[in-house]
Amino acid sequence: MNTGDQALLTDLYQLTMLQAYADEGMDGQAVFELFVRSLPSGRSFMLLAGIEQAVDYLAQLRFAPAELAWLRSAGRLRADVVDRLAAFRFTGNVDAMREGSVFFANEPVLRVEAPIMQAQFVESRLINLVNYATLVASKAARCRLAAPDRLLVDFGLRRAHGAEAGLLGARAAWLGGFDGTATVLAGQRFGIPLYGTMAHAYIEAHEREIDAFARFAASQPEMLTLLIDTYDTEAGAHRVVELAPALAARGIRIGALRLDSGDLLAHARRVRRILDAGGLSAVRLFASGNLDEWRIAALLAAGAPLDGFGVGTHLSTSADAPFLDMVYKLQAYDGRPRRKRSEGKATWPGAKQVWRTHAGDGSLAGDLVALRDEAAPGSAASALLHPVMRGGQRVAPAEPLAALRAHAAAELARLPAALRRLDDAATVQHYPVHISPALQRLAAELDRAAH
Amino acid sequence: MNTGDQALLTDLYQLTMLQAYADEGMDGQAVFELFVRSLPSGRSFMLLAGIEQAVDYLAQLRFAPAELAWLRSAGRLRADVVDRLAAFRFTGNVDAMREGSVFFANEPVLRVEAPIMQAQFVESRLINLVNYATLVASKAARCRLAAPDRLLVDFGLRRAHGAEAGLLGARAAWLGGFDGTATVLAGQRFGIPLYGTMAHAYIEAHEREIDAFARFAASQPEMLTLLIDTYDTEAGAHRVVELAPALAARGIRIGALRLDSGDLLAHARRVRRILDAGGLSAVRLFASGNLDEWRIAALLAAGAPLDGFGVGTHLSTSADAPFLDMVYKLQAYDGRPRRKRSEGKATWPGAKQVWRTHAGDGSLAGDLVALRDEAAPGSAASALLHPVMRGGQRVAPAEPLAALRAHAAAELARLPAALRRLDDAATVQHYPVHISPALQRLAAELDRAAH
Repeated sequence: MNTGDQALLTDLYQLTMLQAYADEGMDGQAVFELFVRSLPSGRSFMLLAGIEQAVDYLAQLRFAPAELAWLRSAGRLRADVVDRLAAFRFTGNVDAMREGSVFFANEPVLRVEAPIMQAQFVESRLINLVNYATLVASKAARCRLAAPDRLLVDFGLRRAHGAEAGLLGARAAWLGGFDGTATVLAGQRFGIPLYGTMAHAYIEAHEREIDAFARFAASQPEMLTLLIDTYDTEAGAHRVVELAPALAARGIRIGALRLDSGDLLAHARRVRRILDAGGLSAVRLFASGNLDEWRIAALLAAGAPLDGFGVGTHLSTSADAPFLDMVYKLQAYDGRPRRKRSEGKATWPGAKQVWRTHAGDGSLAGDLVALRDEAAPGSAASALLHPVMRGGQRVAPAEPLAALRAHAAAELARLPAALRRLDDAATVQHYPVHISPALQRLAAELDRAAH
Repeated sequence: MNTGDQALLTDLYQLTMLQAYADEGMDGQAVFELFVRSLPSGRSFMLLAGIEQAVDYLAQLRFAPAELAWLRSAGRLRADVVDRLAAFRFTGNVDAMREGSVFFANEPVLRVEAPIMQAQFVESRLINLVNYATLVASKAARCRLAAPDRLLVDFGLRRAHGAEAGLLGARAAWLGGFDGTATVLAGQRFGIPLYGTMAHAYIEAHEREIDAFARFAASQPEMLTLLIDTYDTEAGAHRVVELAPALAARGIRIGALRLDSGDLLAHARRVRRILDAGGLSAVRLFASGNLDEWRIAALLAAGAPLDGFGVGTHLSTSADAPFLDMVYKLQAYDGRPRRKRSEGKATWPGAKQVWRTHAGDGSLAGDLVALRDEAAPGSAASALLHPVMRGGQRVAPAEPLAALRAHAAAELARLPAALRRLDDAATVQHYPVHISPALQRLAAELDRAAH
């Protein structure tokens, strides 16, 4: 099912507001910014992802003839407005942080400046894309921090929320520091390295576990990983030891064994001993089954002899934080700054820039959210928002995903130690994000002028 | 981006196992069943959804030429296996519960019987589709139980995990009892009623809130809902009262006001009084903003004068339970029952049927999971699994979504009172699901015969 490219993948009010703007002849330039109001419980930073897909969406946005025909028949918009939609395109400017960048609450990660009908309309899908990809990239980064030198593979497709989540989750996981994914389509679309083992069903379809091992090895001699917990994990390990000489005689090397159930620490220790005693110390151990950054950290802290982890459901659903308080808000219209003042949801007005300062050792020292037109706060500060579209066109071709992934790794390396910890909600560290005096004055002025 | 229809939207191991089965000449009939091992914390039942999409997937499954070309170039499968994939189709039988049915842990909701290469291959996408749709339908059902007679609208697109989640979430929400959705594409694809209001940005783009109200009303005189919390909720309500006579003079009736921030109970009471005093008792109040079944229940229990609710993020991500322990397991191969015995993950073997008994008042009295070939446990019991595909073809055209929605409503009406409560995890009620003696004997036999 083709879903993501459709202009109708939006909220009804985007269309009815578009009709109202058209009726009023309102076509002034609007500035909208995408940002997270507050980080989820237990998160001390977020890792940005999904910008590439957001730009793709803006670049290809148009109503297909079938969509226009349906809109005419549905009767929720007037026919003259539907007619205008045939020529609807995004012609605006977009600035964004680079994917893989670390960011914090109240920092715009993407800014759209366009005629208000366009800038308003794209809200729903922009949030839909960036919210999810950022959740998964951030969860992946936390797993990477928990296991800096182990193999991490995304197993999240089956419990991801639909097809696009499976695909874009794999992309975000790799961006955030995973080594690869099991999702084949992500290999095709994004060039992400693919990893795979075998399912319990394969073992069960054979009369004897050892026959299943032998036949799979014959069929897949490269990167061979055997799953040993279908019946009894340690018995499975002994069967591998029993089988290994025959495989070696045919030039087949067993790469790894996968454990998927029970007490992974205890099983890993016992299996490691069985393998070492059986002359298979080169065979690596790979664990899966309900893992997340906390369980990985606990296993490694306990000294589990595990060389890699498959992380599925908790990664692809960002299970402990399945959504961000990510919003897309009007900050200026027709050259005048705007401020929403709803209780608990007030915004910082005006088009903004985020400036970041690094300490002498390269680590992040503090951010400043300022008005776009303010001077740089000093020569040491870097601007995080960069032009990505001008006049509806990309400023540059998309960066290779591997480059964004390297940027993410560099960003994680620059995180202050306090932010690298897997803090729980109660002890989470807050990074300093300051609001510039000029921006504070502007907000106060708008509040005073409010009627 | 087209994702859901692609054969490559699967886990790598499905392809490598397929190669191994092909190498071994294993083409016996396999029986796989899709079920939930245990319900999420805080859930006493689940409402099934996503079967229609699962059947669509099976019916259209094939590798496109571009996918085959990529597989050849990727080198993970041998060329002769890739060549065979060109003719790969699903030719098997599928039985499933009807969408909208209530189900419980360990009950197969869908059974696939097909040559093992086919039956195995489809695992990843079947879980991906049914897991998510069922989560949202179940969450929607809980919202409906919390608010039996209020308007409930899905606002979940923007925080759903990608495009397909937005679309299929809207479908599942309507199936589960919602009145409609804001997601336009769901209106086009599934005929779901669409609802929409206006965004804060629309208000802010105007110099005065009352001008925004007046102009939106002129542009959208039907089903008019005004958002009143952009600056000050009660002041917004007063502006509506001020504006109403001029609108009425032009034949425009204000349908509802939306509250989206702050203490919704206190605001709703104050706004209701302002409207009633202003002669607008027919104007309804609609609330949104971080709502879920618990907050709705609390608002209604406190007597909040709210006529409807927009439920977004918590619905479309099933935020308190963002995944099910849903699995797809081999239960028989080549006529012989199979049993996975992994610690904590053992399965009930064999092809099965689920029988349900109703009490005299029509409410659900208890379920029995039995072997498919066992006789019905009594004339009062109904079989829940029905044929949906035979030989890879649909047995009947897809049922209209409205009929499935009516079935879901009837199912909720048949829930025992204890299961209709929004129990928390500690007090959740367990419905009796019995395992037939013959099935228990079979499992014990397989364990005894295990080598």
